[in-house]
Amino acid sequence: MSDLSALVNGLNLVWILIASFLIFFMKAGFAMLEAGQVRAKNVSNQLTQTLVTLCVGLIVYFLAGAGVANLVGQLTAGESLVVSDAFAYLWGGSIDWVNWLFGGMFAIAAANIVSGGVAGRCRPRMYLAYTIAITGLIYPVAVGLVWNSGFLASLGFHDFAGGMVIHGMGGLSGLTAAWVLGPRIGRFNEDGSANVIPGHSVTMAVLGTLILGFGWYGFNVGTAVKVVQLTDSGVALADFEYVGRVALVTTLGMATGGLSAGLVTWVRTENVDTLYLANGMLAGLVGVTGVADVLTWPGAALVGVLAGAQLPIVFEFVEKRLQIDDVCAVFPVHGTAGILGIVVYPFLSTGSAGLAQVGIQLAGVALIGGWTVLATFALFKFGTLLGQARVTRDKEVAGLDLTEHGMETYPEFGVGDATNLNDSAVRTDGGYDD
Amino acid sequence: MSDLSALVNGLNLVWILIASFLIFFMKAGFAMLEAGQVRAKNVSNQLTQTLVTLCVGLIVYFLAGAGVANLVGQLTAGESLVVSDAFAYLWGGSIDWVNWLFGGMFAIAAANIVSGGVAGRCRPRMYLAYTIAITGLIYPVAVGLVWNSGFLASLGFHDFAGGMVIHGMGGLSGLTAAWVLGPRIGRFNEDGSANVIPGHSVTMAVLGTLILGFGWYGFNVGTAVKVVQLTDSGVALADFEYVGRVALVTTLGMATGGLSAGLVTWVRTENVDTLYLANGMLAGLVGVTGVADVLTWPGAALVGVLAGAQLPIVFEFVEKRLQIDDVCAVFPVHGTAGILGIVVYPFLSTGSAGLAQVGIQLAGVALIGGWTVLATFALFKFGTLLGQARVTRDKEVAGLDLTEHGMETYPEFGVGDATNLNDSAVRTDGGYDD
Amino acid sequence: MSDLSALVNGLNLVWILIASFLIFFMKAGFAMLEAGQVRAKNVSNQLTQTLVTLCVGLIVYFLAGAGVANLVGQLTAGESLVVSDAFAYLWGGSIDWVNWLFGGMFAIAAANIVSGGVAGRCRPRMYLAYTIAITGLIYPVAVGLVWNSGFLASLGFHDFAGGMVIHGMGGLSGLTAAWVLGPRIGRFNEDGSANVIPGHSVTMAVLGTLILGFGWYGFNVGTAVKVVQLTDSGVALADFEYVGRVALVTTLGMATGGLSAGLVTWVRTENVDTLYLANGMLAGLVGVTGVADVLTWPGAALVGVLAGAQLPIVFEFVEKRLQIDDVCAVFPVHGTAGILGIVVYPFLSTGSAGLAQVGIQLAGVALIGGWTVLATFALFKFGTLLGQARVTRDKEVAGLDLTEHGMETYPEFGVGDATNLNDSAVRTDGGYDD
Repeated sequence: MSDLSALVNGLNLVWILIASFLIFFMKAGFAMLEAGQVRAKNVSNQLTQTLVTLCVGLIVYFLAGAGVANLVGQLTAGESLVVSDAFAYLWGGSIDWVNWLFGGMFAIAAANIVSGGVAGRCRPRMYLAYTIAITGLIYPVAVGLVWNSGFLASLGFHDFAGGMVIHGMGGLSGLTAAWVLGPRIGRFNEDGSANVIPGHSVTMAVLGTLILGFGWYGFNVGTAVKVVQLTDSGVALADFEYVGRVALVTTLGMATGGLSAGLVTWVRTENVDTLYLANGMLAGLVGVTGVADVLTWPGAALVGVLAGAQLPIVFEFVEKRLQIDDVCAVFPVHGTAGILGIVVYPFLSTGSAGLAQVGIQLAGVALIGGWTVLATFALFKFGTLLGQARVTRDKEVAGLDLTEHGMETYPEFGVGDATNLNDSAVRTDGGYDD
Repeated sequence: MSDLSALVNGLNLVWILIASFLIFFMKAGFAMLEAGQVRAKNVSNQLTQTLVTLCVGLIVYFLAGAGVANLVGQLTAGESLVVSDAFAYLWGGSIDWVNWLFGGMFAIAAANIVSGGVAGRCRPRMYLAYTIAITGLIYPVAVGLVWNSGFLASLGFHDFAGGMVIHGMGGLSGLTAAWVLGPRIGRFNEDGSANVIPGHSVTMAVLGTLILGFGWYGFNVGTAVKVVQLTDSGVALADFEYVGRVALVTTLGMATGGLSAGLVTWVRTENVDTLYLANGMLAGLVGVTGVADVLTWPGAALVGVLAGAQLPIVFEFVEKRLQIDDVCAVFPVHGTAGILGIVVYPFLSTGSAGLAQVGIQLAGVALIGGWTVLATFALFKFGTLLGQARVTRDKEVAGLDLTEHGMETYPEFGVGDATNLNDSAVRTDGGYDD
Repeated sequence: MSDLSALVNGLNLVWILIASFLIFFMKAGFAMLEAGQVRAKNVSNQLTQTLVTLCVGLIVYFLAGAGVANLVGQLTAGESLVVSDAFAYLWGGSIDWVNWLFGGMFAIAAANIVSGGVAGRCRPRMYLAYTIAITGLIYPVAVGLVWNSGFLASLGFHDFAGGMVIHGMGGLSGLTAAWVLGPRIGRFNEDGSANVIPGHSVTMAVLGTLILGFGWYGFNVGTAVKVVQLTDSGVALADFEYVGRVALVTTLGMATGGLSAGLVTWVRTENVDTLYLANGMLAGLVGVTGVADVLTWPGAALVGVLAGAQLPIVFEFVEKRLQIDDVCAVFPVHGTAGILGIVVYPFLSTGSAGLAQVGIQLAGVALIGGWTVLATFALFKFGTLLGQARVTRDKEVAGLDLTEHGMETYPEFGVGDATNLNDSAVRTDGGYDD
């Protein structure tokens, strides 16, 4: 190995490893964000879902998912199907394994999004089955189509770090699963009006948001994965030619998303809603994720503003019109925000993508979105028909921590609704006073 | 681009990006540290302040602050004022944007310090105005004077990673703002004696401390920003010639600061006070921040010991003599500790800085300190005159979460003072029994 | 300095610094994991133990421990004892200090493990004495024997990142200390049956687990410490030849450990126990730590499965047979899991280690384990004889936060056992109803 190739490989390996570690840490972000937004009686259940995503998801994606993604790439690119090639990473050695790790961290991020949509009523076995399905098949199909030279790649569909492949998929899958499972008890009244079921800790939700923001730098900036490369004429910067753009638009997307969601909520309620600020930051991050390599910075700011502004509006639409109980708002935060960035970027990019590109982007959204909704619907419907998807009414009322996990999250703290609220803020918790 | 310059640039970019991500993560540290030290009724308000600092601060520092810092550098160095140069980073491309990101993370760290001083009674609009002012003007002036070749740089003022520019400024600004706003209801009695208003969660405060310690490695060690450089004779280590010193003295400053504050408190109260240990670690970190590139390690240990030891003493002075309600102790942790390191370093450094350097250091402290106090005072006084600075008495008593944010942080946990305290520890909370 | 050596040094320094920062962040993981698993009345005490480990441990390891490790290496390798060489790092300059930092972070990880075993009844001064002993002597002896060319190194004992040197030692030391201190009041009944004393927050325990998982990448993958190196024929990858293996087996160990502990618990109790899932992940990580550079990935998966599966079984054995109150399960998580990986690896490695290697591994476990148990026993027994090891019965009942630290962790939350438990889950808390 020549001098320079060792340095090039070493530097690239350092970078991709650190990016992978940062994306791994997003698990702590998901766990805290979701736990903070559920009732105290369901917190351990929510935490368990993230741990299951991590443990089961990584094993499944190693043994099956990454290979399936390669197969889908081969198939839809019109290549011949060579299973041994598709699974060659299993025994590929050091560099293949580093690359797998990076991909595996993305897989369990996609899977974890859904966890926030089905909170408070999903049976652990249903969640386990879903985890196996998304990391072994649903997500790998999208990866194969977009990132492994498959059909959508050949069309020219652009999704840099997973605006559609990860966030669009996660948001749509979460919405579908929440719809099939039905709302938590007490979430909607007989006249169709909705009750707010506030989460048990804003502190944990904000902590989760900030951990996710930190990890997102690994997610987005890390997708500029190749720092330098060997060329015929020597070493040159590779993806790091544009790495500053990715870092800047990720930052601006987050900041404008939070500000925008905060302002829209303030105009509507005269309150500065901490959770909308936090979720708006995430929506802004999601918005730029798919196209962070090609957005101008004013374009990124606009995507952030739109992604943040649509959050309270789409959340209300899902709640009041669709009457779907998307507990952690995963559809507006990940779904619509992810799709938004994917679709509008041709108008906001540094390049000269034309109307044709809009069509290609829409086609990618439709294909991945359709596949996601269908697969998720089939799986949760099948689970429902078998009586395995949702916990019983009694268990839901008592809380999943006690009935599915045999534990209390906070055994020493008296738990119950607070009493110092003014009347207009009285809430139901979906259980205790059932 | 030659082989080696691509490798040099790639490696330096990797390092500065990772340092920036670490400093970003300090947001989670500030959020948890401050939230843990306020009452349960004000936690969401406190978290919101950090989110506002992040979202608004980054946008303002991108569109204005970084350019203002450049302008101040031009002006006070006697150069001609070229606005287009000062704002050239806006369209400068990848490397400029990475450098901006690094600077932006410092800006929102400085801004966030003040948040802990004004906790529990500051109107969100006042905090918003303050955030715009510090990231758009107050902090950039200091950056221009010290780091952008301005007046203090020309004197030889030494502030490596922001002992004065960030921490001294933040601590003084927080003290000034807390003073103008006045203390929380119930904090002081009519006879001038003080009541302790304990924060709602030591766990969150300690978590925040440890996150800040982690991020501080990005802050201090990351300020050794250039790993390698091209020279006439090839590649050489650049700032990484001394990077081990920065890493060591940062670590020793933190450890000796915590130990020292803990011991002083133990001598005074016979208790091992967890919060003083934690805040002592931060004071030690602050102490070495300004001069971490030039301290000997025994010097760093001494700075840590002094920074930790002054913490309980200065806190008591601020509380009992000045009767200022500096909720999260930002003045002793960031202000006096930051100034301490800046001033004493000529006696503890590897170099041969003489008495003249002490004068220069004092001049820098006076200039930046004076500017900070004046600007903060003017802003909060103006807000007070307009009746916009402080929430009403009723809102403060009920808590800012409910009255400004329309939410409870912990809707399921009964909140109120615990009852299993011995009499000598009875506390007031500044509201509930008002 | 030639071109390439500066690049090689710069890249290696960047990597080791980042690994050190990640290991530092494990402090936050230990603090949260342990705090979550103790009673609300002892949380600040538990947090304080981690802060003391950090502050005191780093100072002691800098002034003494690292040098003692070098001395032990010299002595047991049959070299002549040169104290000035052993302590040369103190004034060694930048690269020596970076290397010390990396080692120091390992030292305070080892020390922190014990904190979870002695929770809820150890006097702060006893914990302080123990911290000085382990970072100044107990741990350095093991480092000298294994990593500083000492006796066990000369035998060929293999411990990559501290499966025995750190985790085996921590687990055995914690078990020994918990045994000498005796169980918390109420932990065991007169008939020998055990009462569960649940921790106060599963949320914090899971957060701590995920932070530790994140930091573990620095711990294990970072132990592949040399990215590239200069050779006679130029630059070559160094430890990064196999870095992908370390990253993969660390990930698979964690995932299979969690899954395995979760399944075993589910079979035994029909509950999905969140804490066993979390601690199983840690046990899996511990299992592969000692041999992550040489395990095949199926071998790593098997080690993870075994490490996770033994956790509930060994925990029950310690509790019911040995009647030792190992509060945070540090013996099964760190002790047996660490030893397991060390001992079984010859059968699961890429190399052709034979039965002789099993003997060498067992010898290393016996030597380090014996030293650890003896030293810990002597220290805690001595403390007990002096009446300094354990808090008084009254203090334990009232809680260490109030009696040793003069504070409440959660002054606003009513604390006491929850009431919505079914009868079979009624618990004692070791104090309130005493």
